[in-house]
Amino acid sequence: MTQAPAPELSDIAQALCAALILMVPLAAAGLALTQAGLGRSRSAAHAMLGAVLAVAVAALAYFVCGHSWQGFPGRPAHAFTAAGKAWNWIGAEPFFLGGLPLDASPASLAAWLRMFGVGIAALIPLGAGSDRWRLGASCASTAVLAGWTYPLFAHWVWGGGWLAQLGVNLGLGYGFLDPGGAGAIQAVGGLTALSIAWILGPRHGKYASDGTPAAIPGHNAVLVLFACFLTWLGWIGLNGAGSLLLVGGSTASVTLAAINTTLCAAAAGLAAAAITRLRFGRPDASLCANGWTGGLVASSAACAFVSPAAAVITGAVAGVLITFSVEWLDARRGVDDPAGSISVHAVGGIWGLLALGMFAQIPRDWVLNGVRAGNPNQWLAQLIGVATLVGFVLPMTYSLNWLLNRFYPQRVSAEGEPHGLDLYELGSGAYPEFVIHREDFRPR
Amino acid sequence: MTQAPAPELSDIAQALCAALILMVPLAAAGLALTQAGLGRSRSAAHAMLGAVLAVAVAALAYFVCGHSWQGFPGRPAHAFTAAGKAWNWIGAEPFFLGGLPLDASPASLAAWLRMFGVGIAALIPLGAGSDRWRLGASCASTAVLAGWTYPLFAHWVWGGGWLAQLGVNLGLGYGFLDPGGAGAIQAVGGLTALSIAWILGPRHGKYASDGTPAAIPGHNAVLVLFACFLTWLGWIGLNGAGSLLLVGGSTASVTLAAINTTLCAAAAGLAAAAITRLRFGRPDASLCANGWTGGLVASSAACAFVSPAAAVITGAVAGVLITFSVEWLDARRGVDDPAGSISVHAVGGIWGLLALGMFAQIPRDWVLNGVRAGNPNQWLAQLIGVATLVGFVLPMTYSLNWLLNRFYPQRVSAEGEPHGLDLYELGSGAYPEFVIHREDFRPR
Amino acid sequence: MTQAPAPELSDIAQALCAALILMVPLAAAGLALTQAGLGRSRSAAHAMLGAVLAVAVAALAYFVCGHSWQGFPGRPAHAFTAAGKAWNWIGAEPFFLGGLPLDASPASLAAWLRMFGVGIAALIPLGAGSDRWRLGASCASTAVLAGWTYPLFAHWVWGGGWLAQLGVNLGLGYGFLDPGGAGAIQAVGGLTALSIAWILGPRHGKYASDGTPAAIPGHNAVLVLFACFLTWLGWIGLNGAGSLLLVGGSTASVTLAAINTTLCAAAAGLAAAAITRLRFGRPDASLCANGWTGGLVASSAACAFVSPAAAVITGAVAGVLITFSVEWLDARRGVDDPAGSISVHAVGGIWGLLALGMFAQIPRDWVLNGVRAGNPNQWLAQLIGVATLVGFVLPMTYSLNWLLNRFYPQRVSAEGEPHGLDLYELGSGAYPEFVIHREDFRPR
Repeated sequence: MTQAPAPELSDIAQALCAALILMVPLAAAGLALTQAGLGRSRSAAHAMLGAVLAVAVAALAYFVCGHSWQGFPGRPAHAFTAAGKAWNWIGAEPFFLGGLPLDASPASLAAWLRMFGVGIAALIPLGAGSDRWRLGASCASTAVLAGWTYPLFAHWVWGGGWLAQLGVNLGLGYGFLDPGGAGAIQAVGGLTALSIAWILGPRHGKYASDGTPAAIPGHNAVLVLFACFLTWLGWIGLNGAGSLLLVGGSTASVTLAAINTTLCAAAAGLAAAAITRLRFGRPDASLCANGWTGGLVASSAACAFVSPAAAVITGAVAGVLITFSVEWLDARRGVDDPAGSISVHAVGGIWGLLALGMFAQIPRDWVLNGVRAGNPNQWLAQLIGVATLVGFVLPMTYSLNWLLNRFYPQRVSAEGEPHGLDLYELGSGAYPEFVIHREDFRPR
Repeated sequence: MTQAPAPELSDIAQALCAALILMVPLAAAGLALTQAGLGRSRSAAHAMLGAVLAVAVAALAYFVCGHSWQGFPGRPAHAFTAAGKAWNWIGAEPFFLGGLPLDASPASLAAWLRMFGVGIAALIPLGAGSDRWRLGASCASTAVLAGWTYPLFAHWVWGGGWLAQLGVNLGLGYGFLDPGGAGAIQAVGGLTALSIAWILGPRHGKYASDGTPAAIPGHNAVLVLFACFLTWLGWIGLNGAGSLLLVGGSTASVTLAAINTTLCAAAAGLAAAAITRLRFGRPDASLCANGWTGGLVASSAACAFVSPAAAVITGAVAGVLITFSVEWLDARRGVDDPAGSISVHAVGGIWGLLALGMFAQIPRDWVLNGVRAGNPNQWLAQLIGVATLVGFVLPMTYSLNWLLNRFYPQRVSAEGEPHGLDLYELGSGAYPEFVIHREDFRPR
Repeated sequence: MTQAPAPELSDIAQALCAALILMVPLAAAGLALTQAGLGRSRSAAHAMLGAVLAVAVAALAYFVCGHSWQGFPGRPAHAFTAAGKAWNWIGAEPFFLGGLPLDASPASLAAWLRMFGVGIAALIPLGAGSDRWRLGASCASTAVLAGWTYPLFAHWVWGGGWLAQLGVNLGLGYGFLDPGGAGAIQAVGGLTALSIAWILGPRHGKYASDGTPAAIPGHNAVLVLFACFLTWLGWIGLNGAGSLLLVGGSTASVTLAAINTTLCAAAAGLAAAAITRLRFGRPDASLCANGWTGGLVASSAACAFVSPAAAVITGAVAGVLITFSVEWLDARRGVDDPAGSISVHAVGGIWGLLALGMFAQIPRDWVLNGVRAGNPNQWLAQLIGVATLVGFVLPMTYSLNWLLNRFYPQRVSAEGEPHGLDLYELGSGAYPEFVIHREDFRPR
């Protein structure tokens, strides 16, 4: 038996873990506001309702079957054999959270944290589908994500699956490490966002016939920047709770995780401000917000394992990467991602996973994923995880959404889109008493 | 002496309880935004100021006398004798939080939680009085609610009073159970909201002469839906802290309470979306928000005592009930409740109390309200509590507010109302730089 | 050696302290919304982006050198000798958070709390500079505040410095006490806000040639009042965590701190409502919000050391003081402080420090700042602290910002200001789809 049980938590660490998990809904609130604020006013209620329903669908799908397939280290799972070792590939818990007494045990706390985490993952694609993704289709797509795609990858990382076993089975460091979910939440969500953006195509009027993109500014920058404060807090919860569950033992890892999360976001936000100031002559508010959140995303992997200085470097690189990625996708690849979800969550998350491989300084006496001694080649385990995300999860999530689109078209009809999703799908606007400019934006 | 002392909390459970109580202001923030967003823009600052002042008045009234009358199990109370038993009917603590050293004891934590809880109860009627309830009168009404109505009923439920004693004295289950306040906070607030809606009458222009209601959409759906995230978090705090204080012992009950709260809200929000989609062809954003919050309300009773599957059922029923209740009150009963407070908090809360009677699976070795063994007929205790709310609390809160209205008219003057409460009562609008449609809405 | 080590915290108190620190970003979110909401719509994105970047700069400056100079009781510091005693005047930690293993120790938790606290201090001046402070200059000023001014004073109060040593060295009570930062965060920030308001001068159009001030209402009262809920929660975190770190030991002090914080804010908000109602005939929404937040500020000093009744009195006085201070600065002193930062944070904070001297009832067996027995003359220690703020910190922060202004002009150019900072500095507005009244306000 090569699967290691999860580490124990002291009673106090259990309570602190619960207090940290409590913060995660603020990350959801922040992402929802970011997406609504970066979209058009005529789809703002739709964006927010889509976010509430996505969280609801995700929680129910995770309850019905997601948890069963995610599993938990040391609990039932299906395995295959390769290279003479057993590798877990999917959990085998009963459906409906059946087999687990819900108390303060690590397995229970993990179920709670993962139920909230899948809500975060489910929100990410909404930002890429703003202003054109039908509400029913987004709920269906969320069910697929939360009921299958996310649990599968999360099992591999957090459920004692084969990525976590890379340390025990092959001696690659401690196996793939991702305490806060830079891969399992953010990159999975961000790659699904990419799939959705490809499947839906750009908004009407986004690209001229020669491919020149129009700038379509978000309708409420105050909400977008306010959201930075909420995501900050929510991410400390994600990262702190994830670190406790991975490291086990006492509460000692939380302070480092919180400080690193903050420094990473700060450096990323300032890097985005500096880059946009240098390139366009003025700092760009929405790219700064994207940079800040991208710094949080990047911090999710390494927060508990690096020095504060490494967190600053990780954040600064994240801020630069995301700024260029947003522009590259928009102007070069013709991918219309109004909220920057792909760049923030997929690019930021993948960078964070690699940064862990570069900067992690893991004390020799820690036990992570069942490995006590520090094996070499942690970076290789991280690389395998990233390759799995890009080479397996992306095609899978694209295919599933493409299939869904065959049976249940995801894009709003061409006559509905100009009215805005609020009027067309909900029958009333978000701001019925305010006078709105109705003219469309011109290509720049 | 038939009154049982409150259960002890471990040191760790005390700390976690404090961390959960911290979340309750977010529930207040969420309710305030919901009410402001569902009202008119010309009363939006008034709605928010009314919410801040209601919380302030409630905290002070609870400090002055509310806590004295609420009391705490095992501490001084006045009792009457009936059927050969002593029944507590009101607490007898010193005024001004006098007799209680404020530390981490269960009694102290309860005082803190109840001070925040009374703020939640005080916000609920504001939603029913939107756009026409004078600020001073709403403060006076809040003082009555927080200084008398709420503490009295809360004593019966949480202070070792007669509803809690139904188990010890009459063998009805564990006595009336309501850990998170579905009755003591939500239904008390919701029934007061009903009284206020009756006393104030509908907004000018809400009903045509033949009784046909006009649809008056809320002025900011983004705030309303954003609030769903805040109430989610706030309710986990309410439910988790209340469960700890009722169950005592360790931190084990919090994970179940948090997961059940989430699933109940998720099912209720989706049920409201499905119902409005089926009936009107389109999901209704504000009814979905009402459904979500109503699911949270319904979860407050049973969250710590039911399986996740029962929480899903409770939520789904709550979502359906609330959707129909909103329409029934609006179209059939001529009750103008702009924020849906009556349906969400009174209907949702009462349903939650009954659902506890139906679904609760309380471990035999738990001690609740001083009862160790599981008596039969828990549902009867719940029914008696609900009957007390409808048959005693509603008439009392109606009478008190009716009396208040005699001496201090609650409704804004007829010439003031069309200007909006912001200009008329505060002298300036919420959004002075935005251009607003001023025309009134037509009957549908 | 006259410097006392910091008190120990139980394991549980460490976890609760972490849970309280988690709340501080909500205080930051609340201040940011207050300032954006009380400013003009044409500078709203700028206000929010300035807030995010201020938090980012503050965190990085604290990381680079701020922590080194703040230090922690019992750790390395530079001292001078006077009256035969050694007095610490600046910390001597390594830069880049170097010397401190970041775990759950009090020193680590303090570093985390102070990193967030400096973000709060950094936000305060932004409110005084609304609508005219250049983004780059505000970031530079923040770096000075977070890298020098704040750490220096914080060392004196929280790092075992000379103000904290007044008890040990001179027998003045327990030395200067300020658990939640009424002085070290709020007054330092508020006095910097005063410096900024002086250096920038009033907004264009604020004063007629005869000095008559124009009323320039905030553009979004809903955000301002919503922020009251966020600051409430954030301040309980600041005050609770600060109290734990100062008092040490168990979790017992948190309930009192939370209840006092709430009552202080409630009394202050209601006092502001009553005063404005009496003087102007109508309650003023923005002054009520200022009063509420000012009550929170005032509570930061004494929250853990006074009875709830004293907290109510402290709050009521704060509400009155702040209301008059806002008007006096605006109408008599020609100081244009759009968000009321000076009155709320400097006046409120200084009043709170004095109120501690008046009302504190500190148990004889507590150890605070290394002093066990209750020396007399606590009020004198508080007075010395206040005198240091007004007589030393204010001139220092003014000089530093004046110097900065020589090399890097802080005020936006005269041709840029009428366009609004959003268009002029960021290139796009906060609300591009909403129709805005563009006319300027007239003198009243």
